[in-house]
Amino acid sequence: MLSRVRSVVSSLVGGLLPGPGSAETTGNGAGSATGDPGQTAARFSYGRPDFLNLNTDELECSADHMARPILIPREAGRKMPWNTGYAEVINAGKSTLNEDQAVCEVVFVKRSAEPITNRSTNGWSRTTGSVGNGDSMEADVQMDRMEDDGVTFIYWALFDGHAGAGASLMAANLLHHHVAKQLQGIVELLRSDAGNAPICLDDDGVRPRRPSGQASAVIRGVGSPPPTSPGTPSKTPMEKEVTQDALVIGAIENAFREMDQHIERDKTKFHVPGGCTSLFAMYVLGKLYIANAGDSRAIIIRGGEVVPLTGEFTPETERQRLQYLAHLQPHLLGDEFSALEFPRRVQRKELGKKMLYRDHTMVGWSYKTIEENDLKFPLVYGEGKKARVMATIGVTRGLGDHDLKVYDSNISIKPFLSCVPEVRIYELATQEHTPNDVLIIATDGLWDVLSNDTVCDLVSNFLENCDPSDPNRYTLVAQELVMKARGVLRDKGWRISNEKLGSGDDISVFLFPLHYGNRAS
Amino acid sequence: MLSRVRSVVSSLVGGLLPGPGSAETTGNGAGSATGDPGQTAARFSYGRPDFLNLNTDELECSADHMARPILIPREAGRKMPWNTGYAEVINAGKSTLNEDQAVCEVVFVKRSAEPITNRSTNGWSRTTGSVGNGDSMEADVQMDRMEDDGVTFIYWALFDGHAGAGASLMAANLLHHHVAKQLQGIVELLRSDAGNAPICLDDDGVRPRRPSGQASAVIRGVGSPPPTSPGTPSKTPMEKEVTQDALVIGAIENAFREMDQHIERDKTKFHVPGGCTSLFAMYVLGKLYIANAGDSRAIIIRGGEVVPLTGEFTPETERQRLQYLAHLQPHLLGDEFSALEFPRRVQRKELGKKMLYRDHTMVGWSYKTIEENDLKFPLVYGEGKKARVMATIGVTRGLGDHDLKVYDSNISIKPFLSCVPEVRIYELATQEHTPNDVLIIATDGLWDVLSNDTVCDLVSNFLENCDPSDPNRYTLVAQELVMKARGVLRDKGWRISNEKLGSGDDISVFLFPLHYGNRAS
Repeated sequence: MLSRVRSVVSSLVGGLLPGPGSAETTGNGAGSATGDPGQTAARFSYGRPDFLNLNTDELECSADHMARPILIPREAGRKMPWNTGYAEVINAGKSTLNEDQAVCEVVFVKRSAEPITNRSTNGWSRTTGSVGNGDSMEADVQMDRMEDDGVTFIYWALFDGHAGAGASLMAANLLHHHVAKQLQGIVELLRSDAGNAPICLDDDGVRPRRPSGQASAVIRGVGSPPPTSPGTPSKTPMEKEVTQDALVIGAIENAFREMDQHIERDKTKFHVPGGCTSLFAMYVLGKLYIANAGDSRAIIIRGGEVVPLTGEFTPETERQRLQYLAHLQPHLLGDEFSALEFPRRVQRKELGKKMLYRDHTMVGWSYKTIEENDLKFPLVYGEGKKARVMATIGVTRGLGDHDLKVYDSNISIKPFLSCVPEVRIYELATQEHTPNDVLIIATDGLWDVLSNDTVCDLVSNFLENCDPSDPNRYTLVAQELVMKARGVLRDKGWRISNEKLGSGDDISVFLFPLHYGNRAS
Repeated sequence: MLSRVRSVVSSLVGGLLPGPGSAETTGNGAGSATGDPGQTAARFSYGRPDFLNLNTDELECSADHMARPILIPREAGRKMPWNTGYAEVINAGKSTLNEDQAVCEVVFVKRSAEPITNRSTNGWSRTTGSVGNGDSMEADVQMDRMEDDGVTFIYWALFDGHAGAGASLMAANLLHHHVAKQLQGIVELLRSDAGNAPICLDDDGVRPRRPSGQASAVIRGVGSPPPTSPGTPSKTPMEKEVTQDALVIGAIENAFREMDQHIERDKTKFHVPGGCTSLFAMYVLGKLYIANAGDSRAIIIRGGEVVPLTGEFTPETERQRLQYLAHLQPHLLGDEFSALEFPRRVQRKELGKKMLYRDHTMVGWSYKTIEENDLKFPLVYGEGKKARVMATIGVTRGLGDHDLKVYDSNISIKPFLSCVPEVRIYELATQEHTPNDVLIIATDGLWDVLSNDTVCDLVSNFLENCDPSDPNRYTLVAQELVMKARGVLRDKGWRISNEKLGSGDDISVFLFPLHYGNRAS
């Protein structure tokens, strides 16, 4: 089984990359996207993930839209934690560069001795520097031990760019630093056994505050006066408990926001085109935090069953949010778009007739009489992969896109986009896992042509037939997934089984086993 | 078991109502809330549900806050469809009247021969009149047969009023008419076997429109020009398919909106105080549609397992929607409230310190430095049953409340409230059910003290020990639930087991078996 796969891959890769059995040494990728954290204010040059370790020739070959070689980490290269597998392929020609970017890092967050240092114009505080530099394998089992002066997290991220590679390159280089910076402010709290987070911090550090007074007895209902009139401090305040999980989620949410503002700032000095979706998994203190802004997807396969970890943020899934904004701030539509959704374009000859529609309040559909305003182009239009906001963009959360305008107009789309991720938690340390239980993170290039169940079957069958001692098996299965989604080039384009169209998009897949999380806990 | 329960109930009810074994005849409830549909523009006088058939004395006794008699339908009274069980009790004194209202109706929706008649100022088109007048039991099995000129639905609804009984009375009398009116416009489509709804209706009726042209090939990504420039009809339009389910959901959503506007209109002529939550189950054409706006709850118990059917709409569950509105339209806060949430009230002495907060984008929490503006009262404040919008109202969806203001101010709360229900569908006809599989709809008076699982155990045990031929068994179990939630009056107030506080709220419970839906299909 394995040798068959290797042989197939070898012919697909066409000698560009060393096969799993080879051990060539290669130069450093001159065009690599990884930068010294001290140089993050510089614009990032295009490259492939640093763990692929491509040289200049290989980088060039990787962008061959006809051959579409599948790239995997070379065995002799830098090891990723947890035996992480990875594979990627470029698109079939829709953009010159591969606009996906992938990052895998082990990051140590040092407790801040002094107030958190602000990012200088020149780079980052070294207290949040990455230590993922080659020998992290040994650190796996002990990695979430409470170190005296900080906490460590493992980070796997995918960024799917559009309209240029600039935003995805920036996010790939910097988002984990923003996460580290946000976590730095709460390292002390995460390390404590106190349980809930202190509501208010004293000037000199953490102060657990929980007044002993009774909660004020507010009767449910209306018309009763406020517990205290606005502005007057309450003597017996009610308090909400805030968990450590909620602190980490807040840190991740703020990291995305800071990252988005960072891109906006840097656009004044550099050329940072486009935007990108962002999806990462972060392992810290026994838990996996999955943060998603866009239409990439993460699933867990456990005991041969699928556990979905992410939602999807598209014009269809976020239609009501978009319509609500347009309803409240109609000037954002620029007098060219209608906030209502119709099942298809309305034609002028249909004025006065009844047509199905829905507004921001509705999940169902109803009929309305078509008026002049309904002839405008709909804010949200199209279905599935063809759905668009203002006929322009097919994804509604992510980073960048600050200058994105409707074609041939001055109407800005950014107000409708959100940079906030949905964060979910998977309590890894408290679950039992076998080496065949894996987490898969992939861009929509994979999921557009392979369903969760198909991926589950492929992965489960593949891993069952693998040599369990082969450290490359997770990369081999990632490679298998990319190959299945890309297909092979025939007369009529890229095809998968049954003559179905393969994915012409960039495809990137991380795949790693979960039992390391059990061992680490 | 049964006789024990009857004996307990009899002592609780205190002779006010006939026990399950008696068969007294009673007069019509003089204060009944049911009105002739032709007189709906009149203000509705207070009463209890018409199927309880209370006379004036009984009505008065039902409002005894010390005795809190549990009311159930009398055996000789009007039968409800599907052997529906019901029980209710008034609150322990928080309001003079029982602000819950309950409705059970069988409604025939006649196909409109002419364009839908507008509601006259004086009442309703008779084409949507109710036929739920006593002999609906016989109609059960055949009720969703396609009648030549219309369609029939069964409707169970609960309204939980606040700040007066006016809105809940209006909704109890009129919402099913609004539903019928909305359904009337689509009866023809629901009766057809065509599958999806026609997108555009011709002047002379229904026209299935599905142009044969290919969907236009929009490539996912950004920066590509719109399929057509705004305002120009597309030659090869993409079309969304709209199911019959989506039409019914749209009809229900619009019925709620119309009902809310109806209350607003009538307030110019009548005294219609307060607002109400609204929850109904509607059985039509083999499916149950559950529509919920508020914090009542519906669950199914099937095979001894709970199937939740509703979400809950409270300041906590809708925090982000409320904060988003305040963020976009800060003038709605009247310069007295802050859109940010804090875990407790901020005190002036904490200015300059770091405190946990979250805004409309955040699910997690983070620290911010307290500024002057943060000393304002938070838009959303409190936890659980004590959570409030603007320190005033504990429920964020429902009908009415058009004049609701923050105490001692001119700040209107209605803009933050939504009248739109969440609608879920239960495919009843395609599921197998035993006579012990039931749907339970109850106001928060029940759920505040009894969990889903507790209710499930109580109901399952009760029904297993019932005589399966007793037509009153569903009322008896509803009565049992109300009794368990209310408790008994002791020195220290109403208590349930373990000296826990019983519910001091109005409690109303519908409970009916689902196997009738299988027989009807």
